[in-house]
Amino acid sequence: MQENNWDIVITGGTLMTMSTGMEIIEDSIVGIKDGLIVAVCQNKDSGRAAFQTKETIDASGCIVMPGLVNTHTHLPMVCFRGMADDLPLMEWLTGHIFPAEARFVNKKMVYDGAMLAMAEMIMSGTTTFCDGYFFEDTITEAVSIAGMRAVVSQGFADFATPDNPMFEKMMAAAKRFVKHWQPHAPMITPAYFCHSPYTCSPATLVNVKEAAREAGILYLMHLLENKDEIDTILNRYGKKPVQHLLDLGVLDDQTVAVHCNWLTKEDMAVFADLGVKVSHNPESSMKLAAGVAPVPEMLQHDITVGIGTDGCASNNDMDMFREMDTAAKIHKVTLLDPTVMSAETVLKMATIDGAKVLGLNKLIGSIETGKQADIILVDMNQPHLTPLYNCYSQLVYAARGADVKTSIINGKIVMKDRQLRTIDLPTAMKNVRNIAADIIARK
Amino acid sequence: MQENNWDIVITGGTLMTMSTGMEIIEDSIVGIKDGLIVAVCQNKDSGRAAFQTKETIDASGCIVMPGLVNTHTHLPMVCFRGMADDLPLMEWLTGHIFPAEARFVNKKMVYDGAMLAMAEMIMSGTTTFCDGYFFEDTITEAVSIAGMRAVVSQGFADFATPDNPMFEKMMAAAKRFVKHWQPHAPMITPAYFCHSPYTCSPATLVNVKEAAREAGILYLMHLLENKDEIDTILNRYGKKPVQHLLDLGVLDDQTVAVHCNWLTKEDMAVFADLGVKVSHNPESSMKLAAGVAPVPEMLQHDITVGIGTDGCASNNDMDMFREMDTAAKIHKVTLLDPTVMSAETVLKMATIDGAKVLGLNKLIGSIETGKQADIILVDMNQPHLTPLYNCYSQLVYAARGADVKTSIINGKIVMKDRQLRTIDLPTAMKNVRNIAADIIARK
Repeated sequence: MQENNWDIVITGGTLMTMSTGMEIIEDSIVGIKDGLIVAVCQNKDSGRAAFQTKETIDASGCIVMPGLVNTHTHLPMVCFRGMADDLPLMEWLTGHIFPAEARFVNKKMVYDGAMLAMAEMIMSGTTTFCDGYFFEDTITEAVSIAGMRAVVSQGFADFATPDNPMFEKMMAAAKRFVKHWQPHAPMITPAYFCHSPYTCSPATLVNVKEAAREAGILYLMHLLENKDEIDTILNRYGKKPVQHLLDLGVLDDQTVAVHCNWLTKEDMAVFADLGVKVSHNPESSMKLAAGVAPVPEMLQHDITVGIGTDGCASNNDMDMFREMDTAAKIHKVTLLDPTVMSAETVLKMATIDGAKVLGLNKLIGSIETGKQADIILVDMNQPHLTPLYNCYSQLVYAARGADVKTSIINGKIVMKDRQLRTIDLPTAMKNVRNIAADIIARK
Repeated sequence: MQENNWDIVITGGTLMTMSTGMEIIEDSIVGIKDGLIVAVCQNKDSGRAAFQTKETIDASGCIVMPGLVNTHTHLPMVCFRGMADDLPLMEWLTGHIFPAEARFVNKKMVYDGAMLAMAEMIMSGTTTFCDGYFFEDTITEAVSIAGMRAVVSQGFADFATPDNPMFEKMMAAAKRFVKHWQPHAPMITPAYFCHSPYTCSPATLVNVKEAAREAGILYLMHLLENKDEIDTILNRYGKKPVQHLLDLGVLDDQTVAVHCNWLTKEDMAVFADLGVKVSHNPESSMKLAAGVAPVPEMLQHDITVGIGTDGCASNNDMDMFREMDTAAKIHKVTLLDPTVMSAETVLKMATIDGAKVLGLNKLIGSIETGKQADIILVDMNQPHLTPLYNCYSQLVYAARGADVKTSIINGKIVMKDRQLRTIDLPTAMKNVRNIAADIIARK
């Protein structure tokens, strides 16, 4: 009998693998060693006597599943959570968000904000996210300390930003950023983020895509969040946004389009053909009244779609459980069809499909031997999770972020029994409260 | 200086009164005696040395607010939570829910289900609800034990039900029910619930309304949940549902219409004129793909609208915080207008306006001296509730049921620091698990 020396064993939980076969294993064992999943089986098949482990996590009464993948965030925007809501879009953006960003975004703000956002994400089941904001370099330092897995993207737009007062120098800064962080893969994966087709010139869009191809990294973009964008691009370039991007040659399977609320069937054919991925942020788009992305049709076109929360100024939380619930329900009522966006479909979007969107599906997104150990335990021993007929339904329609008990990223326990291990939560909250107090005082 | 002998004092919280002036009092004092709110003031104005109290609740770091009012529930349906989801409506209803109800609904099931549902409701901030199900008499016994405030309704339909195999005898049973429970006001308020215009004949609708008027109680009805209902009623009676009910004379200010997803402007004028109230259940109607109620237009017509979760087979939880979040967002995206359904409007719907819907607004729904003490404390010392710019935004867009720390109903503490005091939670969960195991075994 082979002796196993594991770092961690998770025992006795209901394991939702989210692998191709979508196996669910009752009374399961997951063995973790050197950051990797080295065993997945039923307890009775584990040869229990034979393994030794440094730490045993009792998962009885829990669902054990892959950590959630949040495909779109702006972490430091937690500092603006609830600062300005229920306003007309342009008043919100130009009267509140942009001025606040211009005045209050600095390295300390993004670091403190990122730390609090990561605390919130870990405590609600997210283990991997894809972020884009100003001073992303500083954010990424925080990510390293928190021990989360992330795609971190350097932003581009054709105007000065808090971190790039000379926007002509963005590319040089971006290249330094990628060079610095690429060796930190697969925990940190740098990427480029062109803000949108209406804030980036054709030259910027093309140059950045070229640089992304050269570096072998993802190329992200907000696309078709609002309907206005269609007319804006049509007036400016004589074609609709997706055609514009297609003609520029920037669409491919390393491109992630965020929002896509106004994607047409023709656009979907283009995306499907080229392998463009989509990040779906239903709650943000509902709250901003931006639109409902035609996700069920995208799935019919075999487009890979992940879920994202967006920033906290437009949601106002980072709870992927809540986002899953909304993602499942909004399309049913929009299409008046209760069969679209099943709980199983949505849970895939929040795990393995989210990993595919970020190009990380060989590493994470399911629980299989050989994959990186990004695993969460959801405590099902709760009144609102009783009784349990169907794990997918329960997780999507009834579970909440607060039900996540323990979280492991890259084989490291970052939260155990709701206690964070890599982030000092009281300090993270205090720092952001101080930033908010300063914003209120100086308004 | 007058000496106050209070039963409970809640001290140091941010008090959201939800009274007409919507006052928010920092570092507040709420005094409770004999089930009533006897003092509401700032700590510094309280003459602290002068009052004596049996129990002091430290609310520092908390929002203190009226308990939430859930205007539409079917408590025992927690037993079917997640049993059948993502199905076509008729398959769901006639293939799963109706057969399960016919086979498994009995007194034990409704009692156990109600107990678990109330545990879930208390733990997510609800203090008052309006229920309708089979064996409502047994449910009401559970309500008395749990110490929640409720409108409990005896149902009517023109077919046999688990509790009334001879449907002709429903009225006699209903009258007994009302007579038995009316003396338990204001904790228990009996009402009549005609299932819908398509399951109740004109004679039933009229007879029940007459009996409701005689008893001076509320008259509830599911109305215009699905679009089909319009054609069904039109074909049967030659007029649309609201006109049908208007002609029958059953609409008045003691009538509560549940759902109203397909209410027209003409219908709204009728409701406004007669004072008919509405219970809005956005998550249930999204999940069942039933429709989006035109609530912003109803509010423009000065119709009083409350929020409800509906039963757990169609939601699948009873968390009013989640329901508020969805209520605020779904109308923004439906009307493509981010200014409709502000957080403040939605929080009123879930408190004082919900109380108005149930005819209880003189007793509950706001924190004012003389009102019954139905009060919750929300622990704001959480990462996802940091920082705090606006209490309304934070509660509606970021808070969750799990953030409710302590709950007081009728001056009695039913939950303190997340520990239930009137319900044995492990037993409540075990009982419903056993019911579910039986359903699974006998399917």
